[in-house]
Amino acid sequence: MIVTVTLNAAIDVTYRVPRLRPHTTNRVSETAERPGGKGLNVARVLAALGHETVATGFAGGPAGALLRDRLAAVDGVTDALVPISGTTRRTVGVVDASGGGTTMFNEPGPTITSEEWTAFLGVYRKLLDDGARAVALCGSLPPGLPVGCYADLVRDARAAGIPVLLDTSGEPLRRGLAARPDLVKPNAGELAGLTGALEPLRAARDARRRGARAVAASLGPDGLLVLTEDGSVLRARPPAPVAGNPAGAGDSAVAGLLSGLVEGLDWPRRLARAVALSAATVAAPVAGEFDRATYADLLGRIEVGAEDEAC
Amino acid sequence: MIVTVTLNAAIDVTYRVPRLRPHTTNRVSETAERPGGKGLNVARVLAALGHETVATGFAGGPAGALLRDRLAAVDGVTDALVPISGTTRRTVGVVDASGGGTTMFNEPGPTITSEEWTAFLGVYRKLLDDGARAVALCGSLPPGLPVGCYADLVRDARAAGIPVLLDTSGEPLRRGLAARPDLVKPNAGELAGLTGALEPLRAARDARRRGARAVAASLGPDGLLVLTEDGSVLRARPPAPVAGNPAGAGDSAVAGLLSGLVEGLDWPRRLARAVALSAATVAAPVAGEFDRATYADLLGRIEVGAEDEAC
Repeated sequence: MIVTVTLNAAIDVTYRVPRLRPHTTNRVSETAERPGGKGLNVARVLAALGHETVATGFAGGPAGALLRDRLAAVDGVTDALVPISGTTRRTVGVVDASGGGTTMFNEPGPTITSEEWTAFLGVYRKLLDDGARAVALCGSLPPGLPVGCYADLVRDARAAGIPVLLDTSGEPLRRGLAARPDLVKPNAGELAGLTGALEPLRAARDARRRGARAVAASLGPDGLLVLTEDGSVLRARPPAPVAGNPAGAGDSAVAGLLSGLVEGLDWPRRLARAVALSAATVAAPVAGEFDRATYADLLGRIEVGAEDEAC
Repeated sequence: MIVTVTLNAAIDVTYRVPRLRPHTTNRVSETAERPGGKGLNVARVLAALGHETVATGFAGGPAGALLRDRLAAVDGVTDALVPISGTTRRTVGVVDASGGGTTMFNEPGPTITSEEWTAFLGVYRKLLDDGARAVALCGSLPPGLPVGCYADLVRDARAAGIPVLLDTSGEPLRRGLAARPDLVKPNAGELAGLTGALEPLRAARDARRRGARAVAASLGPDGLLVLTEDGSVLRARPPAPVAGNPAGAGDSAVAGLLSGLVEGLDWPRRLARAVALSAATVAAPVAGEFDRATYADLLGRIEVGAEDEAC
């Protein structure tokens, strides 16, 4: 199975309002609640691609109970979340039906105790021993966890000989890189924050020097730029821009890259899958889902090629 | 005891953000959750004034469980909420620390079945029989309830000889008035919506003709205007404007009016209490709480007088 780690899982709440009016009262016409946090989004897409997936991380309180209840309804994802005394965070996305995009409110998340972290490590290491074929470490850290904790999880996976992908930002990414993950998937902003370089290829090279074996930089509507283990550069783009909601598109790219790795696909095919999934997620009416027809249509039409290496 | 009815109870969530940025991602620096809905706010203030209070209405789902858990921690309020199969709504108030006021997102509320409404009527009538001294019917109706349901509750209370206050708006207010509640407490906007008259005294007279025995119109920072049972007009104002958050100020006014009625205070003293509580609620740092020092300070300083009746 593939293991996804979501240390700061969430209930993602979507509110639809006719028109967002700041500093006044907005009546919500529609609400939806689903399991969220990057790693759970990745797990759902992996399962939809047919991969047996185990989701671990933390869940607690009423929102944690709701999350587990909703996760139980997702075919192909096994719940291995560790219970905590705190309460799982909620994110609230307000969709403005008059246009202008989604306004997000992200709660910080529960404080994790050292006993809870130790309990998580036990679950994680058992999953590594029990036949994990790949690991995805995804998203922000909740309060209370050591900033270097992703580095520890990367080292454990590498010691077990299991490929590990890291998708986070800021100091947890910086620390995690030094532990030599097989792949990191920053977006251009995260790469710039890490390296100071605004040019993605230059920044990706810097990230690789810091420890990542390979770097997949997500460039939003422009697709993915990859610096592979052997230092070659590949670029994949959708054939045309896709309109919609980009929430979860990066998580779908992670699922595409990791499933391709587990299936032994070469880099061009991994990239094509990741970019097609990502675009099909933008096209889906529900944030974080992917549209299967769009995926099937795009998969053979992603332009993948070697990038000019001058930089 | 005093009975408060909250048919559309809520968990009131407060998010604090450094600056509200619409159509982008806002990291929430602080969250708070408390029992909400107008009737529960009224119950909390009544209990703080020393009145034994029973809160009924509906609660269900994870948010309902959280609401009951939090309500159990409020001294002096007995939980008589009726369980439902739906999920209690949440309201989200986003406080912009840079100024500009609070942005509210109000979920519509759960759909109430006819069996649940029947169960509620049983609880409500038993409370009327068990020694209720006054009833407050507060707030909006959740989906599924007949629009005339407040009228039924007013009739039941009057049949039992128990004074009843109605604080709602729109069609439920219009229908409820016809059942002759002892007091209604609309704000100027609700009165205008009901009667078409923008001038509060004219609108209050119209509301009284429609059935209310007395009308207390809340005029925001300008205090209260009352048209009493015998047709006289009184006005109460705070001595100076109070800065702060007006959320819950109207509910504190309801608690002031109802507690004064139960204690046999005359109208000027009821009004002074209501206006002082309302202003002390605006002054409190937490929405819906009242600041006791401000209340004590203002109580003797509220200007109450007969209003010019020319209109």
